[in-house]
Amino acid sequence: MSAPGRFIALEGGEGAGKSTQCRLLAEALTARGIGTVVTREPGGTAGAETIRGLLLGTEGEGWGPRAEALLFAAARSDHVERLIRPALARGEWVICDRFVDSSRAYQGGGTALGDEDILALHRIGSGGLLPDTTLLIEVIPEVAAVRLDARDQGRADRIGGRPADYHAGVAARFARMAAAEPARFVRIDGNGSPEQTHAAVLHALGLET
Amino acid sequence: MSAPGRFIALEGGEGAGKSTQCRLLAEALTARGIGTVVTREPGGTAGAETIRGLLLGTEGEGWGPRAEALLFAAARSDHVERLIRPALARGEWVICDRFVDSSRAYQGGGTALGDEDILALHRIGSGGLLPDTTLLIEVIPEVAAVRLDARDQGRADRIGGRPADYHAGVAARFARMAAAEPARFVRIDGNGSPEQTHAAVLHALGLET
Repeated sequence: MSAPGRFIALEGGEGAGKSTQCRLLAEALTARGIGTVVTREPGGTAGAETIRGLLLGTEGEGWGPRAEALLFAAARSDHVERLIRPALARGEWVICDRFVDSSRAYQGGGTALGDEDILALHRIGSGGLLPDTTLLIEVIPEVAAVRLDARDQGRADRIGGRPADYHAGVAARFARMAAAEPARFVRIDGNGSPEQTHAAVLHALGLET
Repeated sequence: MSAPGRFIALEGGEGAGKSTQCRLLAEALTARGIGTVVTREPGGTAGAETIRGLLLGTEGEGWGPRAEALLFAAARSDHVERLIRPALARGEWVICDRFVDSSRAYQGGGTALGDEDILALHRIGSGGLLPDTTLLIEVIPEVAAVRLDARDQGRADRIGGRPADYHAGVAARFARMAAAEPARFVRIDGNGSPEQTHAAVLHALGLET
């Protein structure tokens, strides 16, 4: 029987460089002969990608904060049951671009819902599965803004398009979570080049270059 | 300021005659000059009807019990926030074909989820809103089977198409809920003609013919 897989989530705000770092990390693991699955939230399975379309599409009248949190939890439930748990059981590493801490940072900070509600949804939907390691990629707002301008050309999705103070609150909630769970979180400085950040990611996972 | 509205849910298994009774009740209320909204679950709003399509469609690989319960709760959240609460605030009666007790009867009886989980999702998604009166329309399986044959011509949706012992469990859970909350539930014998059942519904609501 193979060794159990490891579940690594990358978290952070828009423009932090998470997707790039997921790709670089997966390449580094594959080069070491480690079976690796790269996935993302919301999405990762056919059902969850369908829900992603409902959540991030800019058509229609959108969702209230409660319905939005339930849809994220539903997508995550499908993703965990059909992709993440089976891959871990096969001994693979799962590299996930956003996971439940994004729901806590984005949906759990308003007046409608608190952190304990998001965690209750995660317990009911996904048995409370948490990553072995959560890499929080942090950038200053000016760096994120430059990257988003280059990437989106002004076309943000429904959540990315929210105002700056919303995103400042998200960053503050991520930082609080990292402080509360130092054994699971590693904070990574994402302001430098992709290669610099990648080296910090490998170091955090005990995979030196 | 007008009188507060009343929230009436009709519950029961497939083939109980809920939709017919919703329509007859709404006609009777309208004839009395009472502003009435007839709606259904899952669905009732544009967003919730989109989720209904995901839940009941027979395409794709379907959903696990946890994702299914979260999707029902998400649809209900949109329905409560955008249709039910505003109609009640305007003083109208809301007649709803299925509500949270259907989730408790259909999704809360398996090994994955319990009744307390369904109620937690309802608290987070919809503030725990319950009907003023829940009419449980009960029929024997033989009557339900004849009505479903006539209606569906063999085309059941993903949930209606489940086996007979599943539906027997649903009926038993509905009966237990009615016994546990006698102030909210009224059990209605639905085996007779639509007119007989309608008379029992009016009587239960203090609206004699």
